[in-house]
Amino acid sequence: MIDARLAELGITLPEPAAPVASYVPAVEVGGFLYISGQISFVDGQLMTGKIGDTRTEEDGIAAARACGLMLIAQMKKALGSLDRVERIVKLGAFVACVPDYSGQPKVANGASDLMEAVFGDAGKHARSAVGVPVLPLDATVEIDAIVAVKPA
Amino acid sequence: MIDARLAELGITLPEPAAPVASYVPAVEVGGFLYISGQISFVDGQLMTGKIGDTRTEEDGIAAARACGLMLIAQMKKALGSLDRVERIVKLGAFVACVPDYSGQPKVANGASDLMEAVFGDAGKHARSAVGVPVLPLDATVEIDAIVAVKPA
Amino acid sequence: MIDARLAELGITLPEPAAPVASYVPAVEVGGFLYISGQISFVDGQLMTGKIGDTRTEEDGIAAARACGLMLIAQMKKALGSLDRVERIVKLGAFVACVPDYSGQPKVANGASDLMEAVFGDAGKHARSAVGVPVLPLDATVEIDAIVAVKPA
Repeated sequence: MIDARLAELGITLPEPAAPVASYVPAVEVGGFLYISGQISFVDGQLMTGKIGDTRTEEDGIAAARACGLMLIAQMKKALGSLDRVERIVKLGAFVACVPDYSGQPKVANGASDLMEAVFGDAGKHARSAVGVPVLPLDATVEIDAIVAVKPA
Repeated sequence: MIDARLAELGITLPEPAAPVASYVPAVEVGGFLYISGQISFVDGQLMTGKIGDTRTEEDGIAAARACGLMLIAQMKKALGSLDRVERIVKLGAFVACVPDYSGQPKVANGASDLMEAVFGDAGKHARSAVGVPVLPLDATVEIDAIVAVKPA
Repeated sequence: MIDARLAELGITLPEPAAPVASYVPAVEVGGFLYISGQISFVDGQLMTGKIGDTRTEEDGIAAARACGLMLIAQMKKALGSLDRVERIVKLGAFVACVPDYSGQPKVANGASDLMEAVFGDAGKHARSAVGVPVLPLDATVEIDAIVAVKPA
């Protein structure tokens, strides 16, 4: 059903990215799926640079949406089916930016709006969003997630 | 009982803040309540600015306590009663500061001390505290929380 | 069994550090152990300074491994036995660095590789890793953890 919703929205999931280091993309345990921080691969290319420096707020929103798509791709890979998603519980958004840019909530909405569009009420989540000076590989945005899941 | 304790401490909870973007204040699932990052509204006004720049350490402690009050206000709204709090499990504290200010633990105590004063042993929590260059709306402090809850 | 594995690896756990402020090192609830952010005590001395400034990437890797050892020491203290570890679920790594250093994943591997060496498949975890301008007491690295645990 969620696959149908993705199709309706014209969304094709990206290939789930392999971790850039010694960890795994997702761990399912105790009814929860913990997903590693996903960085902003937009159409297969990493968006790099900081908002307020080489990147605009609009770039940041697109970067956050890309992180969100990758989170959904990781859910699908880890769970087998997106219909096992019971609730998107929490997103943790890290936005690379200059020290006087304070629009992190607007940027993170790129991912939050996607979750609600795809999962409806089950996509409504808690969130934190903060600015950071730099992210892995100079990514513009990184977002991790906690998802409540139904038994397989 | 926790309401009585708040009264004893002379604490009036703030109106729970609406999210500043596309997410919800709190999600209850699997025996846990995940609360979104709360920023430092002190007496209804957002405390902005970075510690070491326009803000002192004392300001930071007050900002963290304000985040803690807002977290408790969100618990009350989400759970119906604060007596459903089984344990404050984890606080994640983000402190906006200049790069040579390293007193984040002292700042975050503004929230941690409040949790223990209000909830007693159930208020003793795990915590992370880090410095960041900037927070949403230029807030001085942001804190999110995980709470273990009793069934309604 | 995990104690034997530590001995095989020639690892002696550090004395679990007391919190530097008003919180507890770890909270066990609902089948999970939440461990507070541990800073980089290397052989009992706090490693301070930022990567790209007074610290190298190699220093950072050693700092992250030290955080990992302290996380394991806290698990042992909180759980009684490391054999109660069911799964290392998630590490949250914060790396103090200059704004143009983007090797946080390599640094965080200092902890991630340790978890897999000690716990095998149960040590494979989800992870986020981000750069920050400064950490408590000027520590080089801070890492917190979520662990799934077996009943006592």
